[in-house]
Amino acid sequence: MPRTKGDHEARRRDVSEAVWQVMATRGFAGLTLRAVAAQLGATTGLLTHYFPTKQALVEYALDLLEQRTLSRPRRQAGKGLAAVRDALLDILPLTPEATDSNRIWVSSWDAALSDPALSTDYARKYAQSRDRLSERVAAAQETGELPPGNPQHIAAGAQAFTLGLVVQALFAPAEFPPQRQIELLDDYLATLTGPH
Amino acid sequence: MPRTKGDHEARRRDVSEAVWQVMATRGFAGLTLRAVAAQLGATTGLLTHYFPTKQALVEYALDLLEQRTLSRPRRQAGKGLAAVRDALLDILPLTPEATDSNRIWVSSWDAALSDPALSTDYARKYAQSRDRLSERVAAAQETGELPPGNPQHIAAGAQAFTLGLVVQALFAPAEFPPQRQIELLDDYLATLTGPH
Repeated sequence: MPRTKGDHEARRRDVSEAVWQVMATRGFAGLTLRAVAAQLGATTGLLTHYFPTKQALVEYALDLLEQRTLSRPRRQAGKGLAAVRDALLDILPLTPEATDSNRIWVSSWDAALSDPALSTDYARKYAQSRDRLSERVAAAQETGELPPGNPQHIAAGAQAFTLGLVVQALFAPAEFPPQRQIELLDDYLATLTGPH
Repeated sequence: MPRTKGDHEARRRDVSEAVWQVMATRGFAGLTLRAVAAQLGATTGLLTHYFPTKQALVEYALDLLEQRTLSRPRRQAGKGLAAVRDALLDILPLTPEATDSNRIWVSSWDAALSDPALSTDYARKYAQSRDRLSERVAAAQETGELPPGNPQHIAAGAQAFTLGLVVQALFAPAEFPPQRQIELLDDYLATLTGPH
């Protein structure tokens, strides 16, 4: 029987999911054709059809990480300071899915810092994220919920706080359950709104 | 001529420095016997004398990271809030040496998150670091420089902020030169001292 386009798409989704699961449990350091094949219950030979080289597998994984990050559901309800809070809550590992995604992002930092092109690309992504956040900060300043101050500077601080909280929560999930992460974030936002 | 103990010690220092340099430029993902041998100007054969397996090399590198972190010079002058600030400044990549050290720490997170024993060990290290910081926070509360509040909670927030700033500065050193890192930290500390 000839394979249909549907078979092909379904297989691609299975491969993507297997790559994702390997990264979520073993990180980029453990991302090998053999590990993906085992996760998929397939032969390494089949995998080489998709990924002729290790480099192709790593590039695929980085693309997958970016796509899944871009397409993940986001909080949209808030305005003003609530919109700043929503953007930061969207980053934190508050669900198993967000934990996997963050764990893969943190894992990818090693590869990204070792590769000048990738490092530049990551720096650009984080800068864009700060730009989007600073627009929300500026909007919260217009409503008077945040005091005046350079929005880029405030966004950089908020991004730093959130990224560092991600790292802490990944290493110590029992000490940083979702409720504590949210409390720490809300305390941080409360200090921003105070006079200074 | 027989080798002396001094030769042996000197060679060990050379090997340590080569391992350190490889990690600082290529991360744990790029840490191989071949790369260390090339850095040292030695043969891979000589290196297998020190590191019979890749795992032995990785364990050595993790120990070296911990030793160099423990033995690095620290700011000691401050009391009260200044002591909190000093502890956080000691973490930031404000010098080339501190940048290398941070880059290696961030690189090691991938391996650490993939290994349950190592992950537990890292969580313990970060918890100890928060404990030490919370003692300084409590002291700054006693002097009245910081407002009342759970010192552990405040220390966790400050650690998150600092770790996240490390990551941002590693990816975008031009955007986060030492002076900007210090400004962002001082702004963060200023928000903590304000009433809330």
